[in-house]
Amino acid sequence: MELVVTDLAASRHFYVDVLGLVVTEEDTDTVHLRTFEEFIHHNLVLRQGPVAAAAALSYRVRSPADLDRAVAFYAELGCRVERRAEGFTSGVGDSVRVVDPLGFPQEFFHDVQHVERLAWRYDLQPPGALVRLDHFNQMTPDVPRAVAFMEGLGFRVTEDIRDAEGTTYAAWMRRKPTVHDTAMTGGDGPRMHHVAFATHEKHSIIAICDRLGALRLSDRIERGPGRHGVSNAFYLYLRDPDGHRVEIYTQDYYTGDPDNPVVTWDVHDNQRRDWWGNPVVPSWYTEASLVLDLDGHPQPVVARTEAGELAVTVGADGFSYTRAGDEPDELPTWKQGEYKLGHQL
Amino acid sequence: MELVVTDLAASRHFYVDVLGLVVTEEDTDTVHLRTFEEFIHHNLVLRQGPVAAAAALSYRVRSPADLDRAVAFYAELGCRVERRAEGFTSGVGDSVRVVDPLGFPQEFFHDVQHVERLAWRYDLQPPGALVRLDHFNQMTPDVPRAVAFMEGLGFRVTEDIRDAEGTTYAAWMRRKPTVHDTAMTGGDGPRMHHVAFATHEKHSIIAICDRLGALRLSDRIERGPGRHGVSNAFYLYLRDPDGHRVEIYTQDYYTGDPDNPVVTWDVHDNQRRDWWGNPVVPSWYTEASLVLDLDGHPQPVVARTEAGELAVTVGADGFSYTRAGDEPDELPTWKQGEYKLGHQL
Amino acid sequence: MELVVTDLAASRHFYVDVLGLVVTEEDTDTVHLRTFEEFIHHNLVLRQGPVAAAAALSYRVRSPADLDRAVAFYAELGCRVERRAEGFTSGVGDSVRVVDPLGFPQEFFHDVQHVERLAWRYDLQPPGALVRLDHFNQMTPDVPRAVAFMEGLGFRVTEDIRDAEGTTYAAWMRRKPTVHDTAMTGGDGPRMHHVAFATHEKHSIIAICDRLGALRLSDRIERGPGRHGVSNAFYLYLRDPDGHRVEIYTQDYYTGDPDNPVVTWDVHDNQRRDWWGNPVVPSWYTEASLVLDLDGHPQPVVARTEAGELAVTVGADGFSYTRAGDEPDELPTWKQGEYKLGHQL
Amino acid sequence: MELVVTDLAASRHFYVDVLGLVVTEEDTDTVHLRTFEEFIHHNLVLRQGPVAAAAALSYRVRSPADLDRAVAFYAELGCRVERRAEGFTSGVGDSVRVVDPLGFPQEFFHDVQHVERLAWRYDLQPPGALVRLDHFNQMTPDVPRAVAFMEGLGFRVTEDIRDAEGTTYAAWMRRKPTVHDTAMTGGDGPRMHHVAFATHEKHSIIAICDRLGALRLSDRIERGPGRHGVSNAFYLYLRDPDGHRVEIYTQDYYTGDPDNPVVTWDVHDNQRRDWWGNPVVPSWYTEASLVLDLDGHPQPVVARTEAGELAVTVGADGFSYTRAGDEPDELPTWKQGEYKLGHQL
Repeated sequence: MELVVTDLAASRHFYVDVLGLVVTEEDTDTVHLRTFEEFIHHNLVLRQGPVAAAAALSYRVRSPADLDRAVAFYAELGCRVERRAEGFTSGVGDSVRVVDPLGFPQEFFHDVQHVERLAWRYDLQPPGALVRLDHFNQMTPDVPRAVAFMEGLGFRVTEDIRDAEGTTYAAWMRRKPTVHDTAMTGGDGPRMHHVAFATHEKHSIIAICDRLGALRLSDRIERGPGRHGVSNAFYLYLRDPDGHRVEIYTQDYYTGDPDNPVVTWDVHDNQRRDWWGNPVVPSWYTEASLVLDLDGHPQPVVARTEAGELAVTVGADGFSYTRAGDEPDELPTWKQGEYKLGHQL
Repeated sequence: MELVVTDLAASRHFYVDVLGLVVTEEDTDTVHLRTFEEFIHHNLVLRQGPVAAAAALSYRVRSPADLDRAVAFYAELGCRVERRAEGFTSGVGDSVRVVDPLGFPQEFFHDVQHVERLAWRYDLQPPGALVRLDHFNQMTPDVPRAVAFMEGLGFRVTEDIRDAEGTTYAAWMRRKPTVHDTAMTGGDGPRMHHVAFATHEKHSIIAICDRLGALRLSDRIERGPGRHGVSNAFYLYLRDPDGHRVEIYTQDYYTGDPDNPVVTWDVHDNQRRDWWGNPVVPSWYTEASLVLDLDGHPQPVVARTEAGELAVTVGADGFSYTRAGDEPDELPTWKQGEYKLGHQL
Repeated sequence: MELVVTDLAASRHFYVDVLGLVVTEEDTDTVHLRTFEEFIHHNLVLRQGPVAAAAALSYRVRSPADLDRAVAFYAELGCRVERRAEGFTSGVGDSVRVVDPLGFPQEFFHDVQHVERLAWRYDLQPPGALVRLDHFNQMTPDVPRAVAFMEGLGFRVTEDIRDAEGTTYAAWMRRKPTVHDTAMTGGDGPRMHHVAFATHEKHSIIAICDRLGALRLSDRIERGPGRHGVSNAFYLYLRDPDGHRVEIYTQDYYTGDPDNPVVTWDVHDNQRRDWWGNPVVPSWYTEASLVLDLDGHPQPVVARTEAGELAVTVGADGFSYTRAGDEPDELPTWKQGEYKLGHQL
Repeated sequence: MELVVTDLAASRHFYVDVLGLVVTEEDTDTVHLRTFEEFIHHNLVLRQGPVAAAAALSYRVRSPADLDRAVAFYAELGCRVERRAEGFTSGVGDSVRVVDPLGFPQEFFHDVQHVERLAWRYDLQPPGALVRLDHFNQMTPDVPRAVAFMEGLGFRVTEDIRDAEGTTYAAWMRRKPTVHDTAMTGGDGPRMHHVAFATHEKHSIIAICDRLGALRLSDRIERGPGRHGVSNAFYLYLRDPDGHRVEIYTQDYYTGDPDNPVVTWDVHDNQRRDWWGNPVVPSWYTEASLVLDLDGHPQPVVARTEAGELAVTVGADGFSYTRAGDEPDELPTWKQGEYKLGHQL
């Protein structure tokens, strides 16, 4: 993932000094970072720029020949394609960047520079060490269209959120055998909803929260920690100095079987986003990062026209239940302030 | 702690089947429960009754002679005192019950029946085993008055929440060398705010949340899990079927030194109640359990007249900061919905 | 994995009542078990029989057509092959069993019966819930030969143990992107060294140890818990009532890159098998389960002729170091009893 | 605890850089260290000296007047007593040092310098942060005599190890309401067996092991990690550069009731020292630190004449059982190498 940040020193402080990512290489404009189990040069690039945005969502392909296939595939679709034999950033060789039909800047690469995998370097790891870049999450107005396109690339749906009227609110899609490599979240887009890093245990995520508190940076916590319904993973959402959303994530399940069952959640099930029924802060549904085209200009944002998850679950026009069949108004008093606000406004 | 519950079967389900407390003895009207490291007959009694309330906050005294001292002490204060050589419930002998000057039903006892301490019985312990009754929390209109009274009994303040105008919002008081055996929380009272049970690790508390989700009982979660600022403990607040509040609590610190430093928190410090700055649900400030007099009638509730913590921290008349010196309006967008609601209403 | 056990009731007690595996289906001769995140009918079969042994190491293939390929592949090699359209056990359809060139009974299947994935059923999960069958470990006299054969099937080496003289003592091989789906351990064989189940966190493994202690079954613990050097995973080895070895395993690392670096460990590095330098009990090197041919008869065991890991690391003819370059005799007094025994015998 | 170390730089590296204790004050000869929840100037002093030894086992008393009582008490017993109004080291005022009748150098103090309690400073805490000095462990030839003396000081036995012939092998004694402030371990003495620091969770102890592995210092691990039978705590024993033994310890139970039940363990119960039945390395029974008299000379060591725990539990003259009633020879093969060694020698 390559992120454009507006104050590189502030972002470096957040990702390196607070979250503990490892600097592989840096100069005045760019910081290349990696997690403790990564042997590739980097898995996050911070680049100084005028407008905070995601510049590339990058995937490694199995062989150099896959890059030729990517060029042909996207060119056939009429997408803008750019290939650089020397790569777009340090540590990565021959690479292809495209703006895909959904409007996202995608990158594909195979050739990489190897660095030390710090998995065994417990002497260097802080409490809450981030070990792996786990997934992206993309906000897009039309989820079924996005799903269909990604299925064409070989991604498979593992879980989704729907309603009885047939609207799909979000879908999780995988290449590696976990719940996802990326998710398609319904909303105004194309925007980058979040990038997620994995830790090993739940207390690792708590350690990050505790450290943010100690540094008086607790307002970087947007949502969580909590247990997801979707994915069954333990999670935390942070916002970096530019507002880019970062998830810390651990312990979903194996999905590598060819007939892995898809789990569909009812959008009104209040445990779908948080298994404990804790409320989702509205900004989590509405805010996301701009994405750039290949010239570095922000892509225009198209509004979602279908029903939105926030509107249908909270407030005067929405409802959430803990138990299927419960009446919308049967919330205990301690939940009403959170979920029935709309009734009062 | 003795709780009056209005549906004993429902309460038994919650405390035994969901939370995993151990039944020492029960009959049609009463269930005596204990935690896994308790060797005394019980530390929680559920009793069927017409009005949900706390019937007794009970403390063990060091010797039988302390009961004579208790009788003399409370009689001198003009409190109603009742002593029963056979005890007020099964498993406990000679006991004294009083209504203290703050209006709370307090019990003192020494003679107890021993039962098996199940500390080593890992074959019986569920995920999230509750090991000890850690503390009570009492809601009372006048915190300084309550603190002064408890100090006379030998309790010592370990932490408190104040403001620059001299108002005390809450105080934590200890006998055993932890942060508290009871806390005095400012609010309409006398009411019982919560009873807290200890677990060993943070994942134990998460396991309880996960189980509530699996049982579709997540709406029993009122607040948390999270890290307290005050006490530095990891916490979760639940509401039982009658609305009695139960805290699950782990990992505060040793306070047994005679000069243990008192930690005073600014009421506007948004990390005082939750170190991660997560919002406190309004019901947590306003709702609490009635307490009974010695005849089993609910004590009248007197309104707090001093400033209230909810009002001074949230909404049009309040503010909370993450960093001392920050402007009240400088909240990031994802925090505004939670803390600046008052501005909009 | 299908295990033949000599006392089905005793084995059922161990796997179900002690380890907490879920019974999908059982009759008087057979118990079909699964882990909490498995959606396939079973991943462990216990079958009553006269001689304790492993009857099948089973792999799921991507498509039904892969079974035809398997038949052709093994027939070409001159292996005995048996195919049953109705499967060899309940819950699995069309299956192929072979005795591979290394002497192991391997099974391949695609068609399965789906059952509930209990990942979210925290109400059913005990402390230390086993979530997935992670890998097998096979003992074979000639590791390089075994590696070469498995590479032909598409497995890839992730880590191995060697010495300066060119001997390979063990190799870990993967299909899914973890450290292994199976390992080849040098020793008398073909024998089944262990089958491993995954948990989510390290405390889960500790919980299993604690429960074994509470049940006075601590002598089922053969080795651990500890941190592996190889794989960087946290581990525990148990022995079931027939002596079949079971590993509980958590938190290795992602190996799915095409150029994932192979980690080679020196056999004399005392942190290779246990990162903390704790000794490996001799039985762990010498004992393993018989494997059966397709008629249910134990395969003859062929002795390893190359140097053995136990002999070269412990005792008069072996040595282990903590720091490369240390003298073999420089062990602290508290380590000498464990590693220098040979000097004294 | 004041330790004399022979290479201050090496010891400082171990306690500060590896274990993560906090330096409050240091000079060329002395390092004053504290744990993260300590508000007193220090709880461990390292002092450069010619012979590795424990110079003082120090207890804080409730009031200055208790120091007068201590002087009178030990003088009456004929012990050598030294009092210094300015204290024996930085950060502590008026103090009394004695050689007690058991031969140990004990210190008592009340007046201390306060420093910042770093409990909330998660930004400074490493994985496995040590939070509290929990207890001492003293090796002494005659355990009943030692227990009787300590009971006279107000300590109470919480657990002990005995045999059917009436020998007491060890006893745990408390002032604060945990399992112990000190333990009396039978063996040649007076010697200091270990000093123990508390962490919050079990994974904290594992993190220390992992870090030792990463630093190629795993040979500092003498025993563990494991679960104690006695105390039910999770433990690890390390040896510092001089061989001083340090325990890392977490999660025993509350013992503050006046009638807290004493738990007595059979010396032949193989789960008493390790609940999982893992073997105790012989050095743990036989090695300990010298203690100094008030002139800084090592106290002579007197041999234990009663039966020793190592001899009666391992080897030709001893036995250990997992289940009471089991035959001594009924160990599984994987346990025989560890426990039946004596039969072979």
